[in-house]
Amino acid sequence: MAKLTSRSEDYSKWYNELVVKANLAENSGVRGCMVIKPYGYAIWEKLQAELDKRFKETGHQNAYFPLFVPKSYFEAEEKNAEGFAKECAVVTHYRLKNDPDAPGKLMVDPDAKLEEELIVRPTSEAIIWSTYKNWIQSYRDLPILINQWANVVRWEMRTRLFLRTAEFLWQEGHTAHATKEEAEQEAIQMQEVYRDVVENFMAIPVVKGYKTPSERFAGADETYTIEALMQDGKALQAGTSHFLGQNFAKAFDVKFTTNEGKQEFVWATSWGVSTRLMGALIMTHSDDFGLVLPPKIAPIQVVIVPIHKTDEQLNEIRVVAENLQKELTAKGIAVKFDDDKTTKPGWKFAEYELKGVPVRIAIGPKDLENKQLEIARRDTLEKNSIPMEGAAAHLENLLDAIQKNLFDRAKKFRDEHTTTVTSYDEFKDIIENKGGFVSALWDGTEETEEAIKNETKATIRCIPQHFDQVTEGVDFYSGKPAKFRVLYAKAY
Amino acid sequence: MAKLTSRSEDYSKWYNELVVKANLAENSGVRGCMVIKPYGYAIWEKLQAELDKRFKETGHQNAYFPLFVPKSYFEAEEKNAEGFAKECAVVTHYRLKNDPDAPGKLMVDPDAKLEEELIVRPTSEAIIWSTYKNWIQSYRDLPILINQWANVVRWEMRTRLFLRTAEFLWQEGHTAHATKEEAEQEAIQMQEVYRDVVENFMAIPVVKGYKTPSERFAGADETYTIEALMQDGKALQAGTSHFLGQNFAKAFDVKFTTNEGKQEFVWATSWGVSTRLMGALIMTHSDDFGLVLPPKIAPIQVVIVPIHKTDEQLNEIRVVAENLQKELTAKGIAVKFDDDKTTKPGWKFAEYELKGVPVRIAIGPKDLENKQLEIARRDTLEKNSIPMEGAAAHLENLLDAIQKNLFDRAKKFRDEHTTTVTSYDEFKDIIENKGGFVSALWDGTEETEEAIKNETKATIRCIPQHFDQVTEGVDFYSGKPAKFRVLYAKAY
Repeated sequence: MAKLTSRSEDYSKWYNELVVKANLAENSGVRGCMVIKPYGYAIWEKLQAELDKRFKETGHQNAYFPLFVPKSYFEAEEKNAEGFAKECAVVTHYRLKNDPDAPGKLMVDPDAKLEEELIVRPTSEAIIWSTYKNWIQSYRDLPILINQWANVVRWEMRTRLFLRTAEFLWQEGHTAHATKEEAEQEAIQMQEVYRDVVENFMAIPVVKGYKTPSERFAGADETYTIEALMQDGKALQAGTSHFLGQNFAKAFDVKFTTNEGKQEFVWATSWGVSTRLMGALIMTHSDDFGLVLPPKIAPIQVVIVPIHKTDEQLNEIRVVAENLQKELTAKGIAVKFDDDKTTKPGWKFAEYELKGVPVRIAIGPKDLENKQLEIARRDTLEKNSIPMEGAAAHLENLLDAIQKNLFDRAKKFRDEHTTTVTSYDEFKDIIENKGGFVSALWDGTEETEEAIKNETKATIRCIPQHFDQVTEGVDFYSGKPAKFRVLYAKAY
Repeated sequence: MAKLTSRSEDYSKWYNELVVKANLAENSGVRGCMVIKPYGYAIWEKLQAELDKRFKETGHQNAYFPLFVPKSYFEAEEKNAEGFAKECAVVTHYRLKNDPDAPGKLMVDPDAKLEEELIVRPTSEAIIWSTYKNWIQSYRDLPILINQWANVVRWEMRTRLFLRTAEFLWQEGHTAHATKEEAEQEAIQMQEVYRDVVENFMAIPVVKGYKTPSERFAGADETYTIEALMQDGKALQAGTSHFLGQNFAKAFDVKFTTNEGKQEFVWATSWGVSTRLMGALIMTHSDDFGLVLPPKIAPIQVVIVPIHKTDEQLNEIRVVAENLQKELTAKGIAVKFDDDKTTKPGWKFAEYELKGVPVRIAIGPKDLENKQLEIARRDTLEKNSIPMEGAAAHLENLLDAIQKNLFDRAKKFRDEHTTTVTSYDEFKDIIENKGGFVSALWDGTEETEEAIKNETKATIRCIPQHFDQVTEGVDFYSGKPAKFRVLYAKAY
């Protein structure tokens, strides 16, 4: 197996190689669309299951809405159209026919032109709110708390596996409420659900905050975000939750009769995370040897590799391995015993390192003699031997320790790469040379935000909720009185 | 709540009303595309989970392939193109722009025409085999056992909720093998997995068989099917598993090096079931009062309705109800205690009847006095009282009994509506007046099959595996020597 390009040499190349070599995903024959391979999909499935559980615990139900959105639906919601409907896949015809001029070739049948073009959903607010209109008459029909697992398409010009693809998988929650307060609380609750899963399941530390008006979702009154920091010092927006006010209700004329008999527009939220989180997972934990997976999201948490010369040795090892496997399985730990004879232990070691399996156990004849196991941690690459007696309990604790270590390590990196600045020179120096989050005062104007973005490519990632509004100090760029402390960074 | 149209009055109308009123699905603003509502989706999710478990138990992994298929991929596989690529959604452009002649309107940007049109997948053989080509070099890369959960689009002209929609949800397995035998075994195995889930989880009896050449999947050498019979006497194809031979390997040039160093084409299967099964579920068990769900697939298996006049009574009932709920939950039974005060017990009874909840428990003050519960079975509509003591165990057995009764009832109906005929007059009489499966001898020719289809609309649903090839008797239509005993029926 050829080694990966190292991160220090070329981070972007390292990422692409890792995604392909660890069998997570690959580019397809269709421009901008990826194939998510079984190992990558198994990780996504674990994340899906965890998110889905939290959504249901917070009272949401799943449903499914059409893939296609008639063009006119986007015209109803002007801001949304500006934001999403432009770069999209447009279905104009519903039939192919044999090309009379080229035997064996197919052509679009000009007689099968749609009266109205259909857009492959870039997001589903428009189609869902046109549906909610029929579901909502009275306050008794509210709230509606629905989530959808779906594929969406945005015609991105420059794509990268998981991070930016024309088609991607995601979940999108769409809720309808009788009051502004309830909708706001819902948006904030879902931001917290995302933080919880991303931090405690994926071991990725995030900053909770809200977006500046220019960085908001098109059509939102407030966008809540969780922002993560990657190893190369660039930020990644890991999930967003939008308070949509009454914008979509007004666009699609969705009113309800209140308890007092008045007609009012419905309040809305939407919130989503996508396969982009796979990119965040990779770029938070992995190293030059390959993927590093936090135990909770790892499809294989422990792998057992036998070291043997003879079949007799293998059979002796198998007894111990299968016993241990049984004990670990009973504890809910996913174990693989790799007794494949067509590959050597060294090859297996490299393979599971590349695939980020948190703990590798090697068992050879000497280990049997000494009644011990050789254990290698993927996160620290440390090896040591432990007694067979009590190994299952030890391993259970070790997985917890690895989960914690990965989070702590990433948080330490994040904290070390969060710099407070007060001058533009400092700002540019940090953004260009060190990377990471830059904490600074902002005057609250789009002009300043835009100027800094154009000059440095750094954007305001969020206004962190724990800083919030400030009453003293000046903007480092404009010199005007500051309104907020914000986090800047270059971002994916 | 307005009553449903009765089945005897208008079966088709009954079905449509039931789907909408039981909150399973509804038509959307997009022609031929449905919205699957939360209750309908919850049923689909339970079916998905069951199927997914079986797929994994039989060694399959999930993955995800692109939504779009370049037009030229269909040209590679001629038969497949003939079968599916014609009536499809064709993406021709990747951008909209503001219409300069109509403020507020969007138009397709003529400058954003795709070089090659993209087809929204009607099925994924083409895109998947173009991918497998890069994954398969040697026999060591085989077998590939992959399943995908996805949405697909086929531009149907006449659509019906769940049964035939332009977009539908399904799973599609796509496997690659080194030998013909292994691929055939895989196709047969997956047919059996489908039979098992459809019969034992959905309580729908099916006939296993294989399709005649003219009814095969385009590109298959053999199509294995499971065929169910609906209450109106029409058959429904509930799942198919295809042995694809080397057809796709040849179309996409997918060869592997054998153990002996030879180059050979890969053998393939594909298999799928879809949201169509929701239609089969409804039309197998339901009645004039609404949906009837087999307990195993019911999102709510037991509902408890309090009958009370005062809040004090409700509180006393709540103690008993919550205790029972706890006991049932511990047994893995999904229970809902509906203490909503804004609706009356009578309304709730009708609602849960409509939604097919297998068991309804009513608890009133008298029941508390007598330490009993009133129990209503959805399948038979029978009511009786049971002692509170030991109720959980009783209910657990009752759910099993209901599951069995629904299967037995449907099987009895199926058997009573399977008629053996030896003359064309009999055949026409049964097909026109009684409906159901007609077992008859077939001469094995497409001419006979086609003639009967044109004259009666009945098709050969399958050659049942337990009948198979015959050596005596004549075809009832052509009078020629018979080759197979087959099942005819009109079908959905």
